[in-house]
Amino acid sequence: MRVKPGHRDEVVATLVGGADALRVVGCDLYVVGTSDTDEDLVWVNEVWVSKEAHDASLRLPEVRASITRTMPLLTGEFTSQELDIVGGLGVPE
Amino acid sequence: MRVKPGHRDEVVATLVGGADALRVVGCDLYVVGTSDTDEDLVWVNEVWVSKEAHDASLRLPEVRASITRTMPLLTGEFTSQELDIVGGLGVPE
Repeated sequence: MRVKPGHRDEVVATLVGGADALRVVGCDLYVVGTSDTDEDLVWVNEVWVSKEAHDASLRLPEVRASITRTMPLLTGEFTSQELDIVGGLGVPE
Repeated sequence: MRVKPGHRDEVVATLVGGADALRVVGCDLYVVGTSDTDEDLVWVNEVWVSKEAHDASLRLPEVRASITRTMPLLTGEFTSQELDIVGGLGVPE
């Protein structure tokens, strides 16, 4: 996602701050990254136990509050790619 | 990365099969994913303790053998994005 200039750290703090609470609702991984070469870009790579668990999480009050807080700080430019996780290292079985 | 048609499972098996061995050389996460909507596409999301550890891994005999085996099965179309990992869930401290 692309953030409005100057708001990256605020968006990142919200994303990272909310990540631990996602574990109990089926989130296995939630990795927040930034880029040296494009300072208004924030990447999130997530692994969920199911698509249903992810979709349900979007209805949680804490998550909705986080989205409400973050949306005004974003430009609206999003790209996303949904994947089936096959395996690897650090991926829960 | 994009695989030549019909070779996805072979590429995925090589990537997943080699992932565990990367832990001792500084790889924290190595997540291999495929797409429902584009069956010749394979995604790998990696987290390393440092860029140096990643670069050094490319010189390991096992990794070089894996690359040699996989390259002929790929179209040559790669995209990549290097990130600084800020935090989240499931990310080693």
